[in-house]
Amino acid sequence: MSLIDHTHDPLARSWVASANADDTDFPIQNLPFGRFRRAGTGEDWRLGVAIGDQILDLKLAVGAGPWDLRWSSPLQRLLEVLALGDLNVFMALSAAERRSVRHGLFAGLREGSLGEAALQSCLVPQAVAEMSLPCFIGDYTDFYTGIHHATTVGKLFRPDNPLLPNYKWVPIGYHGRVSSIGVSGSTVRRPLGQLKAPDSEVPVLAPCKRLDYELELAAFVAGGNALGEPISMAKADDHLFGVTLLNDWSARDIQAWEYQPLGPFLAKNFGSTISPWIVTMDALEPFRVPFAHPEGDPQPLPYIDSAKNRSEGGYDIDLEVWLQTAAMREKGEPATRLMRSNFKHAYWTLAQMLTHHASNGCNLQPGDLMGTGTQSGPEAGEGGSMLELSQGGKQAMTLPNGEQRTFLLDGDTVILRAHTARPGTRRIGFGDCAATITPAPSSIS
Amino acid sequence: MSLIDHTHDPLARSWVASANADDTDFPIQNLPFGRFRRAGTGEDWRLGVAIGDQILDLKLAVGAGPWDLRWSSPLQRLLEVLALGDLNVFMALSAAERRSVRHGLFAGLREGSLGEAALQSCLVPQAVAEMSLPCFIGDYTDFYTGIHHATTVGKLFRPDNPLLPNYKWVPIGYHGRVSSIGVSGSTVRRPLGQLKAPDSEVPVLAPCKRLDYELELAAFVAGGNALGEPISMAKADDHLFGVTLLNDWSARDIQAWEYQPLGPFLAKNFGSTISPWIVTMDALEPFRVPFAHPEGDPQPLPYIDSAKNRSEGGYDIDLEVWLQTAAMREKGEPATRLMRSNFKHAYWTLAQMLTHHASNGCNLQPGDLMGTGTQSGPEAGEGGSMLELSQGGKQAMTLPNGEQRTFLLDGDTVILRAHTARPGTRRIGFGDCAATITPAPSSIS
Repeated sequence: MSLIDHTHDPLARSWVASANADDTDFPIQNLPFGRFRRAGTGEDWRLGVAIGDQILDLKLAVGAGPWDLRWSSPLQRLLEVLALGDLNVFMALSAAERRSVRHGLFAGLREGSLGEAALQSCLVPQAVAEMSLPCFIGDYTDFYTGIHHATTVGKLFRPDNPLLPNYKWVPIGYHGRVSSIGVSGSTVRRPLGQLKAPDSEVPVLAPCKRLDYELELAAFVAGGNALGEPISMAKADDHLFGVTLLNDWSARDIQAWEYQPLGPFLAKNFGSTISPWIVTMDALEPFRVPFAHPEGDPQPLPYIDSAKNRSEGGYDIDLEVWLQTAAMREKGEPATRLMRSNFKHAYWTLAQMLTHHASNGCNLQPGDLMGTGTQSGPEAGEGGSMLELSQGGKQAMTLPNGEQRTFLLDGDTVILRAHTARPGTRRIGFGDCAATITPAPSSIS
Repeated sequence: MSLIDHTHDPLARSWVASANADDTDFPIQNLPFGRFRRAGTGEDWRLGVAIGDQILDLKLAVGAGPWDLRWSSPLQRLLEVLALGDLNVFMALSAAERRSVRHGLFAGLREGSLGEAALQSCLVPQAVAEMSLPCFIGDYTDFYTGIHHATTVGKLFRPDNPLLPNYKWVPIGYHGRVSSIGVSGSTVRRPLGQLKAPDSEVPVLAPCKRLDYELELAAFVAGGNALGEPISMAKADDHLFGVTLLNDWSARDIQAWEYQPLGPFLAKNFGSTISPWIVTMDALEPFRVPFAHPEGDPQPLPYIDSAKNRSEGGYDIDLEVWLQTAAMREKGEPATRLMRSNFKHAYWTLAQMLTHHASNGCNLQPGDLMGTGTQSGPEAGEGGSMLELSQGGKQAMTLPNGEQRTFLLDGDTVILRAHTARPGTRRIGFGDCAATITPAPSSIS
C-alpha cells in the first residue's frame, strides 16, 4: 500500500507565502517538528512545525481549533499531545495517528484552508526563534553504514585490513554520548586529549590537532519495544519517526590512540550537533528508492531482509558540507561547499539499523537517536569528513579565499545541509546543521 | 583533612536492632540510598535509606521532623529534597550538603536518638519492598580498569596482543546502553544475535551460546560539569556520589563477531543489572587505600595524577560472584560462590575515571553511571567472568551439585556481592545484585 497521498502533491500550496518559494526547505509537503521559543524571552519551550520562513506554534494552534470540525477528522486530542510541548509523547503514538496529524496540519496550512484566519496569529518567524533539541533523547546510537567512508578511513587506521570481515554482514553500531548532543547554532569547544605521535614513546595531554566533522543523518525512534522483544523488519517502519542531520564531531588524533579495543570514546563525546527540525518519515515517503547490496556481496541475513526493504528501503537524500572560516565571516564572504553526497549509498537502511538494534531484545524508546555513520559518496571528493578529503591530513584543501585546511581551525563554522529532489516531487529540505569551533582550554585546573 | 568522623565509629549502634547484627550489609555506618515501594501496592516510588533489614522511608521521615531542632543542624531543607523522591536533585547538592544529611540520618537512627519514637513509624521492612533504579541515569559509561581481566580476555580475542599499548596510559572506556539497565531481581532474556563459528563462512542469527556475567562496581556521578569544562583531579571526589554493584551481562559469541572496529554493542546492550542501594562515597571513606601502578609501568599523566590519588585513591572492597542454577533452586540448595576478588586491584581509580571522562569537556550529569569494568583478581580462579573461569569455554567448572558450566544456562541466577572489612572498621555491604536468565525468543517476528 503506497503511503503517498495528497499531502505529497507537488502542486499543493500554502497560504504562508514563503512556503511556496522554490528554494524553501519547508514547503507544505514537509511539515517537520521542532522545539522553539522566541529568542531572548525566556518563555517556555513549545513545539512547532516549520512552514516556509515561519513556525506554526502548536500550543497556540491547538487552541485555534476546533480542528475536528473545520479541517479534519478526530484530531483535537492528538494535537493536544503536541500542545503539551513533549514531542516524545507524540512520537509514541501509532503511525496512523501521527499520519492523521500530518493530514490535519496540511489541511490547516494549505491554500484556501478555512483555518487561515485563526492560524495566522499562531505563526512565529523563524528569524526571531531560538531552537532547542526537539525531544528528550534517552539513548544515542551511531551506526557505520557509509561503506565508502568505512573503506577510506579503514585504510588510514588499518592499511592492511580496511573493511573488516563483519562489515557486510552486521550493521555495525556503537553507543554514543547523549549529554553532549546540541542543536544547530551551538559552539563546540576543541577538546583536550591524550595524543601520541607515531614517533613518540609517550602520549601527552594537548588540544586536539586533527579536529574533524562527520556528515551523517540520524533517525529518531517513534514507538519503542519492550526489553527482550525484538522488532521484525515488517514492523520497523512504524517504529521510525523522522530524520535530522547529525554532525558527529571527531578528534582524529585522540581517536587513533584511544579507540582499541572498545571503540571511540573521548574522540567523539565532547559534542555532537543535530539540525533542529525532524523531517518525518511521512514527508520522506516520495523519496524512497530500491536497496540492494552490490552484486557479489553477501545478501542480508533473513532477520534484516524483506521484500519491502529491497524495493524501497533506501532514501534518496542529497547531502552537503559547507565551511565558513573566521576570515570569511569577518569579510562577509559566504560559506563554501566542500562536498556533496547522497544517503542512497548507505550500505544498510534505516529499517535494518532499527531491526538489528532490537534483534537482541535491546529496548528502543521514543526519542532515541540512531546516527547513520558518515555518508561519503563513492567518488573522490565525496568524502563526508576532512579526514577523507585531506587524505588523512596529507593533502590540504585550498578554499576559494586562498586559505588552506587539512583539519578544522578555531573559528571555523561547519554547516551540514540536506534536501530531496526528484522529478515530479516537491523539494523538501532539512534546515542547517551549523556549529562553530571555539578554542580548547589551556589546561585542566 | 580526613573525612572520617563519628558516623564511621565502629562502635556506633542503631535503635534498629537488625542494623547491629554482625553480618548485616546495612549497619548505621552505611546508610545507602535506594528507591522503593511496598510490593504489589502500586504506590508511588519513594526514596529510602537501608538500615539493617529495614528501609527508612524518607518521605515519611522528613515529615517526622523537625530535624533541625531535634537531631542536627539546618537539615530540614535538604531532607525535603529527598522527600520529593528524585535522587538526582539530591545528587547535585554539594559534598558538604550531602554529608550533613548523612550526619542527620545518623543522628536520627543511632541508639539513644531523640527521634526514635517518631522514626519508628517510618520504617518499611525490606522483605515487603520492591526496588527500582535508584535514580534517573542520563548516560552510562563502562570503563575497563580490571587489568587482569583485560589481559586474560585480551589473550582470547587477540592472542598475540593481549594488552594494547594504550592500556597503561588511557583509562579505556566506552558508552553503554541506558534503557536496558535494570535493578537486582530482574530477569535477563538470552539474546539472539549474529554468531559466526570460526570454521564457518557465514554467520547465522541464533540464541547466544556463550552468555556470561561480568563482575563490576559502578559509580554514580554527583554534581556535573558544564559542557567544555573539564574537572581536575583536585575536584573529582566531590563529583562522585556513591557506588553500586554492576553486572555487565555479555554475549561472548556476539561480541567476538561484531566488536571490531567500534567496540561491543549488541553483545552488551540486551541488559545490565545494578544493585538497588547506592553506597555513598562518605560511607566508603574508611576503606580508602593507596593507589600505584606496578613498578616499571608508566606513571599516570599529570591530569590524572594527584598526591591524594596516590595516597588514598583506591578502595578496598571485597567482591564475589555466586551462582544458583535452576536445579539448585528447585532442590532448595543455596547459591555457590564462584570467585572472590577485590576492587583494590583496579588499574585506575574512580577519580581518574571521572577526570579522564571529563578531560575533553564531556559534560557529566548527576546520576550518570560509570562502570569500572570487570574486576578480576591477579590469581587463577579470581576471574570476574565465566569467560575467564572457563578459560574461554575450554574448561568446564563443576558445581557442588555436580552440574557443569562453561557459560550460563537458562534458569541460572547470578548474584554479585560486595562488602568492606578491615580491622578497626564496621563491615558494610552493598546488598545483592541478582538476576536470572530466561530463554531466548524462538525467532524475530
